[in-house]
Amino acid sequence: MNAQWADPMIQPQRALSAQAMAYASIGNVAVGFDILGHSVAGAGDRAWVRRIDEPTVRIAAIRGCVDSLPLEAGNNTAGAALLSLRRALGLRHGFEVELHKGIALGSGMGGSAASCVAALVAANALLERPLPREALYGFALDGEAVASGSRHGDNLGPMLLGGLVLATRERLLRLPVPDAWHCALVHPHVVLETRRSRAVLTDGFALSEVVAQHANLALVLTGCHRGDAALVREGLKDVLVEPRRAPLVPGFARVKQAALDHAALGASISGGGPSVFGWYEHRADAERAAAAMAAAFAEQGIASDALVSPINGPAAELVDEDEA
Amino acid sequence: MNAQWADPMIQPQRALSAQAMAYASIGNVAVGFDILGHSVAGAGDRAWVRRIDEPTVRIAAIRGCVDSLPLEAGNNTAGAALLSLRRALGLRHGFEVELHKGIALGSGMGGSAASCVAALVAANALLERPLPREALYGFALDGEAVASGSRHGDNLGPMLLGGLVLATRERLLRLPVPDAWHCALVHPHVVLETRRSRAVLTDGFALSEVVAQHANLALVLTGCHRGDAALVREGLKDVLVEPRRAPLVPGFARVKQAALDHAALGASISGGGPSVFGWYEHRADAERAAAAMAAAFAEQGIASDALVSPINGPAAELVDEDEA
Repeated sequence: MNAQWADPMIQPQRALSAQAMAYASIGNVAVGFDILGHSVAGAGDRAWVRRIDEPTVRIAAIRGCVDSLPLEAGNNTAGAALLSLRRALGLRHGFEVELHKGIALGSGMGGSAASCVAALVAANALLERPLPREALYGFALDGEAVASGSRHGDNLGPMLLGGLVLATRERLLRLPVPDAWHCALVHPHVVLETRRSRAVLTDGFALSEVVAQHANLALVLTGCHRGDAALVREGLKDVLVEPRRAPLVPGFARVKQAALDHAALGASISGGGPSVFGWYEHRADAERAAAAMAAAFAEQGIASDALVSPINGPAAELVDEDEA
Repeated sequence: MNAQWADPMIQPQRALSAQAMAYASIGNVAVGFDILGHSVAGAGDRAWVRRIDEPTVRIAAIRGCVDSLPLEAGNNTAGAALLSLRRALGLRHGFEVELHKGIALGSGMGGSAASCVAALVAANALLERPLPREALYGFALDGEAVASGSRHGDNLGPMLLGGLVLATRERLLRLPVPDAWHCALVHPHVVLETRRSRAVLTDGFALSEVVAQHANLALVLTGCHRGDAALVREGLKDVLVEPRRAPLVPGFARVKQAALDHAALGASISGGGPSVFGWYEHRADAERAAAAMAAAFAEQGIASDALVSPINGPAAELVDEDEA
């Protein structure tokens, strides 16, 4: 035990409950399928976590814009993540969780990841020795696997660290992006299940497609490192996955064109869809694009929500419990 | 015409002939199939180019370690590049070329690219207004296509600019690498034709392979940008192409292991093979690895040459004609 805590009189009193918010995110970012994502301000999931004496994890309630999720901890993304945390740390105590969903499931905005990260960040605050954010990643992957059937961190990573994040199976790396760059993210009110949007990706990919996508990924990464919008504009194109998924997003071509029409660096499907995003050098362009994208969905009779956020979006954070 | 050249008395006298050297290169670099390469000091092709009055391109001679190449300009990599240059610039004069090959064909060290780049750099020096190196890239791609049947710039790019280069179809970007990092490149004396090593890549690639390779590429690029050897070590693995090509390189597994045994950042096949390379943080490790890799080839009765070079290898350069 740390020497400064040896005197029980100055040992910090750990709270018995905590609440955390994890923000939405854009997965894939056109060129980094399953490995690249960034967080988005303006929508998120909240998790309220209580330490309990029983050596278990309980999902007490799920509220908000989704309520048909499994309450059995092992089948719930937040529950599975906390079970994994308990097991790895050999915790004697358990957790009770209430989720308040602000991100629709099947929206392509990282809804399952957000519940998972919010629960982990809140539970972490209740540990005697809270872990650094990066150390929560493996538990988050365990949770995400329950929801999507795949261990991918392109939503989890940016929720944990904020901003644009490269998420491999082993680690997270935050990548630099100019603060002025913004995204427009428009969520049509139709559901596209992650599993369904993955089913169109089972055939083999041609070498030429793979090489073109590699080149685009390299251009975007180099452009972000250099803060060079021209490189990002050249590379921010999904030639691999978007052509296969576009038919699953109603009116995709028109919405994407609306995104591109406002000086976009690029535009594509967010995560597994059906949300669509664009990247912009300036907030004003992102705002105009968001309105145009929502209008393009509306023309087809589809209602939508629009978010505009810095690409350097927020990391998950503890919130005052009174805000619940 | 530029104002400073308006007076014919001060117009520079262009030379009538020039000689250039283009150095070997490592293509693909494990994670960037067709788009990532770096130059290698110690071996290269020389081209001697003369301005001629006839509106044509002639290959007068091919000497050195290869002499079975086509002399018909349109079928020769250097000839095709110069034909493309002539056409694009509307030149009235032509070129006569002599090539001195220092890089074996079918070695995976960019032999065809080197002749092409050396000829372009020499011919460029004979133009009234020489072009910047990047502007030669398109002509070089035209030449490379004749030799390999594919427009890829992972050898051409580093030969033109030096060092580690990202080469898309449209542009070249030099990437930062610490000066201390070195490669070992060992060329076994067996020929593997580029077309044959491409033939094993015609089947479709699974999404999981593509994503793993994406992640490795992103780690290597980020590691190079940060000068972070740990990231490069984590990512410098070819999970996409190497498994399919390894059977074409005699004793590949043992040679690769010899490369890895000396604190390598990673090791794989150079270009289309059969040469094998490793990356190292220090020159001394690269030298020990090169000897061990050559020994591993020798155990199978295969002679080889070994090169050790900074990853920031040299760009093609004009050389004194007396050195011919």
